[in-house]
Amino acid sequence: MRRIEVCLSPELVHLYDLKDKIVVVVDIFRATSTMITGLANQVKSITPVADLETCRNFRNQGYIIAGERDGLPAEGFELGNSPLSYLKNAYAGKKIAVTTTNGTLAIEKSKPGSAEILIGAFLNLHATANYLSTLENDVLIHCAGWKGRYNLEDSLYAGALIEALDKTLTYDCDSALAMKTLYQAAKEDLITFIHQASHSKRLQNHHMDADIDFCLTLDKFDIVGKLVGEQLVGKKIHEEKV
Amino acid sequence: MRRIEVCLSPELVHLYDLKDKIVVVVDIFRATSTMITGLANQVKSITPVADLETCRNFRNQGYIIAGERDGLPAEGFELGNSPLSYLKNAYAGKKIAVTTTNGTLAIEKSKPGSAEILIGAFLNLHATANYLSTLENDVLIHCAGWKGRYNLEDSLYAGALIEALDKTLTYDCDSALAMKTLYQAAKEDLITFIHQASHSKRLQNHHMDADIDFCLTLDKFDIVGKLVGEQLVGKKIHEEKV
Repeated sequence: MRRIEVCLSPELVHLYDLKDKIVVVVDIFRATSTMITGLANQVKSITPVADLETCRNFRNQGYIIAGERDGLPAEGFELGNSPLSYLKNAYAGKKIAVTTTNGTLAIEKSKPGSAEILIGAFLNLHATANYLSTLENDVLIHCAGWKGRYNLEDSLYAGALIEALDKTLTYDCDSALAMKTLYQAAKEDLITFIHQASHSKRLQNHHMDADIDFCLTLDKFDIVGKLVGEQLVGKKIHEEKV
Repeated sequence: MRRIEVCLSPELVHLYDLKDKIVVVVDIFRATSTMITGLANQVKSITPVADLETCRNFRNQGYIIAGERDGLPAEGFELGNSPLSYLKNAYAGKKIAVTTTNGTLAIEKSKPGSAEILIGAFLNLHATANYLSTLENDVLIHCAGWKGRYNLEDSLYAGALIEALDKTLTYDCDSALAMKTLYQAAKEDLITFIHQASHSKRLQNHHMDADIDFCLTLDKFDIVGKLVGEQLVGKKIHEEKV
């Protein structure tokens, strides 16, 4: 049976063998939630880059640039890191370059040897689960965390994805067992529970409650977010099944 | 109010400020459980050392040497890492030097700047909690994990200790909230739950079921294990209250 593991921080990912794995990178608040929202709203592609300066240079190549540091929009960038900015196809057809505090680093660190990189969010939980169930590789969920530390919302997503894949994938990984159990303990009132998370409090301090609630919406979109070359693109699952 | 944090792996401890913290190092299977058992059984002191060779050299200085790698006793060592070896005051009055796969490294990494280092185990959960409640410093629980990865049993101990200190210490730390919630979800049948952990399975494969059950016994001993200089010693709590 195929296996699934959970890496709780980019600071731990060197301990995992990425070879031939499908890596699902998750940064619920807000990088991967925002990326999925952009891709579901007809953005052409999203290029994750590691630092602000590299991201700025993409502007000259016709990209819209999006940047965030420590939960706040980066100065001089057209977009911050709010998923709401992309709604109603606001950037349909555009190419976006994005850099965030945690999410883009986690994507970069997921590359060596891996077969495929997806980005995950509660917004497309079951789309990702359904897509994964059609493949053959083992899976690693890579939580972006907060500056290297464990965070609640990414690990709860990991638990939710493992639960959704319970019939397809097995695990011999303590973090997989723990996060599935944690999710099952918290899922009845997930929003109240995650509001206690440190990053949720940080966003509340910045008056970003609408972003929090949006990022915790389940299955709003039916696309999968996938890295192709250096760009994230959105795919409808049925396209993958052909 | 005093604060408590949880670091889930020695690979993450550089992200925490140890200055003036009381660090509680935990390696349930089996380093810290074994150390607490030894100290409660009248061992004079336990010196944790990083590697097998250094540990061997302690023999010439009159120490009993104890060593374990990957869950198995190290070759040529008088003792492995089983808590049962120390029962009935078998090594009363002796000085022990010990090296283990994860626990001794976690102790070493807890030193820079910290005010005090304790070792924790389910075996003396409330003794440690009571002692901590008499002090004034903030607390960091440092889980030894397994070769840098998260493990279930150490993080459940963290959750148990946080629950025991709920009236004395607060937290703004996602791993503290998560592990307390996980412990509360699992505590009704903790032994069955931890038997699913990867290290528990490893020990079962080595026919060490008696060690597992022993390490999960709650409050068998009323001592605190504390690093004084380079040596761990056992203290009755009431001595500390004087």
